[in-house]
Amino acid sequence: MYTLYGNKVSGNSYKARLTCELLNIEYQWIEIDILTQENRQAGFLQINPLGQVPVLLITPDNLAANSEPTLILESNAIIRYLAEGSALIPNSAIDYARMWQWLLYEQGEVRPNIASVRFIRKFQNMIPSRLEEYQQKFDKSNDVLSYLNQQLEGKAYILGDNVSLADISLYAYTHNAEEGGLDLSPYQDLLNWFKRIESLPNFVRL
Amino acid sequence: MYTLYGNKVSGNSYKARLTCELLNIEYQWIEIDILTQENRQAGFLQINPLGQVPVLLITPDNLAANSEPTLILESNAIIRYLAEGSALIPNSAIDYARMWQWLLYEQGEVRPNIASVRFIRKFQNMIPSRLEEYQQKFDKSNDVLSYLNQQLEGKAYILGDNVSLADISLYAYTHNAEEGGLDLSPYQDLLNWFKRIESLPNFVRL
Repeated sequence: MYTLYGNKVSGNSYKARLTCELLNIEYQWIEIDILTQENRQAGFLQINPLGQVPVLLITPDNLAANSEPTLILESNAIIRYLAEGSALIPNSAIDYARMWQWLLYEQGEVRPNIASVRFIRKFQNMIPSRLEEYQQKFDKSNDVLSYLNQQLEGKAYILGDNVSLADISLYAYTHNAEEGGLDLSPYQDLLNWFKRIESLPNFVRL
Repeated sequence: MYTLYGNKVSGNSYKARLTCELLNIEYQWIEIDILTQENRQAGFLQINPLGQVPVLLITPDNLAANSEPTLILESNAIIRYLAEGSALIPNSAIDYARMWQWLLYEQGEVRPNIASVRFIRKFQNMIPSRLEEYQQKFDKSNDVLSYLNQQLEGKAYILGDNVSLADISLYAYTHNAEEGGLDLSPYQDLLNWFKRIESLPNFVRL
């Protein structure tokens, strides 16, 4: 049995939800309100001392009664675990390495920039103490969007012909970049790629 | 044939070098001088437009003459590719997921904080324009070191009894945290874990 602790407005949580939906994986959703900092309260910190969502709880119903429930942290590690054996994970060693290259790029460049400008603008109403950070991350976000747009040129998906977890992960914080004040109209290949992902069977919106 | 574009003082590059050495993988090293910004010049930007090291170049000598050389970016994706089939990658699905959980934590929390304070202090001589950032990242670095120390309590390696890529990756920027001005003496479990890694056959220093 899978339980996802997540938040409905969080792109990181959305990656896990979208992966479950696309793959018809059954799961229970437990909403953690990050806007009221429920993720920083004792109840949730017992689950994840880092206070981050999503968290995947695996309770092995078909194992011995004394077997331990298991937690997996980090959105990209969670979706990798959930998608094991599915078409969302490439077979070839090179494509598999490239998938991880993009999942790490997402973690290192997309999330810290695009997710932050969205959060500051949409959920913190451009709080003055973060305005300088907003501008720096806004500029870096445009670099990221431009790079992704260029990498998608002539391709259906980021690895080529087939959709993979790299697309799911990169989509989570790019498709709503306008909520961070970013203009997506110069990035036509990116916009076409959004439409392709949004046409996948069982696709659900953030 | 493997070629690693890397830099001898970069922890990210060191991860790839250490993995090759521990696994007796033959490779050619091409030094890219990040301190003189060789990574931002046209020659290297043709290899990696992001200007980052390490980059793994795979030239498939045993394939057809017209086969394309392949590049893999992102240190943790590179070491995952290099270690395929070795004991540095756990067999169980849960341990494999946990390995990635730590590789993503490394990318999301360790590198942006501990590597930055080291770079600002050791290679930029505490440049005034980054002092505020240094202090913020110094404090976060202590949170990271404290969390890792706690996670290592009672364990030989971060996943338990066996060394994995998660250890190699986490070691790269924690064992030299003192170069960033951080005091490691409160973190005894971390210091013991350093010694265990440094005793591995074929271990090489950064």
